[in-house]
Amino acid sequence: MTDHAAPTAAVLIIGDEILSGRTQDVNLNAIARFLGDLGIDVAEARTVGDRQDRIVEALNALRGAYDYVFTTGGIGPTHDDITADAVGAAFGVAVREHPEALAILERRYGPGEFNAARRRMARIPEGGTLIANPVTDAPGFQIDNVFVMAGVPKIMTAMLQDLAPRLRTGALVHVRTIRVVGVGEGAIADLLRAAAGARPDLSFGSYPFGLGGDGEVGTQLVIRGRDGAKVDAAEQDLSENLRSSSIEIAVT
Amino acid sequence: MTDHAAPTAAVLIIGDEILSGRTQDVNLNAIARFLGDLGIDVAEARTVGDRQDRIVEALNALRGAYDYVFTTGGIGPTHDDITADAVGAAFGVAVREHPEALAILERRYGPGEFNAARRRMARIPEGGTLIANPVTDAPGFQIDNVFVMAGVPKIMTAMLQDLAPRLRTGALVHVRTIRVVGVGEGAIADLLRAAAGARPDLSFGSYPFGLGGDGEVGTQLVIRGRDGAKVDAAEQDLSENLRSSSIEIAVT
Repeated sequence: MTDHAAPTAAVLIIGDEILSGRTQDVNLNAIARFLGDLGIDVAEARTVGDRQDRIVEALNALRGAYDYVFTTGGIGPTHDDITADAVGAAFGVAVREHPEALAILERRYGPGEFNAARRRMARIPEGGTLIANPVTDAPGFQIDNVFVMAGVPKIMTAMLQDLAPRLRTGALVHVRTIRVVGVGEGAIADLLRAAAGARPDLSFGSYPFGLGGDGEVGTQLVIRGRDGAKVDAAEQDLSENLRSSSIEIAVT
Repeated sequence: MTDHAAPTAAVLIIGDEILSGRTQDVNLNAIARFLGDLGIDVAEARTVGDRQDRIVEALNALRGAYDYVFTTGGIGPTHDDITADAVGAAFGVAVREHPEALAILERRYGPGEFNAARRRMARIPEGGTLIANPVTDAPGFQIDNVFVMAGVPKIMTAMLQDLAPRLRTGALVHVRTIRVVGVGEGAIADLLRAAAGARPDLSFGSYPFGLGGDGEVGTQLVIRGRDGAKVDAAEQDLSENLRSSSIEIAVT
């Protein structure tokens, strides 16, 4: 990529249930697509369990290396929800009840229902600002360049909408896909390597499909870059080279 | 967990397509379930793009910290398949054509089809041994405590079968799930916290469902541990405490 100003991001997935295989994570994919539309590149993702030392270590590594860090999971009312405390420890700040968060939760729960466990969800590291949760009200929070969100995908996705205005956006990445039918990656690898070598400012990916006998065999070639004209030109050149090798293609 | 002898593992997902959101990763979940059945705990996972420096950094951090590392992606025939070279760089060894891998690939492809790109798939870091690929033949490889597998899920899953006999297994983790219906996490958090506090050698997780209005609302309580009798006893105690609070539950 030639645009060095594009913001970078990391994603930190928190939860034993992901590492045990009990739950299939879908949040990384949703965050990556959301940030892609804002021109922000996700450079790395990590998944750790519900252990404060692991969360602190990962968070401190990521928040120093990238412009933004997005975390998911561990902000509910139960004893295994330790993300707020871990984030406080990573930043070296106290975790206190946030008056606005407390007000939001008091409104949601009746006097008899607003117990100590639910009140824990108002605890935010000092200096943090809230991220709205239109689904179940209990807020996420932002501290410095770290955005702390829920793990339930429906809530996480809603929280992303609230934090979007706080992000510096980058130039959009343009994507063109060439669908090569009937041959595997190996048959077009030389043409693809030449195309990538000729345009070092673009990224060229190759993704086979149909391996293992499930239907049509072929390869998706994906060209990505921040200069749309260059991406289009690269797609045209590569398409012509494939066609003159008598390889059947479709461009999308 | 009281069993300190249980082997630990990390998963390293390699591929721009995961971080761009183009592809939803399913390999971490499959590996986690596979290793869970062998009593091996996945302690951390990372996802990096197709960049050698990022792969080397992540791999060296993980292979030093855990008993095993499992990587997926980047071992195909195209220019963006750089995992073998990155693993070689991480170990400080040369990457050379492996005679057995070469023989396997020569058998698969006819003389006219076995081009330079496909021949690249025979390159393995020195000291590596092969992991069989019954789907498309091109092998993965093991070097020291690192297992390098394909990114295509069907191939990756097949490779896991081949490497299983090489792994030291741990005591199985026993899991009991209590399904609490009609109340959210906040209503049972105190009972759950007391249960977890009474049995520090077990892990207690809480996972809400139905938030956001999609059907029945409730919470899954998951008790995990390597001593089956203790897990059963914890499940019985917690179930009784929930029932005496007039909370509707189902145990699975």
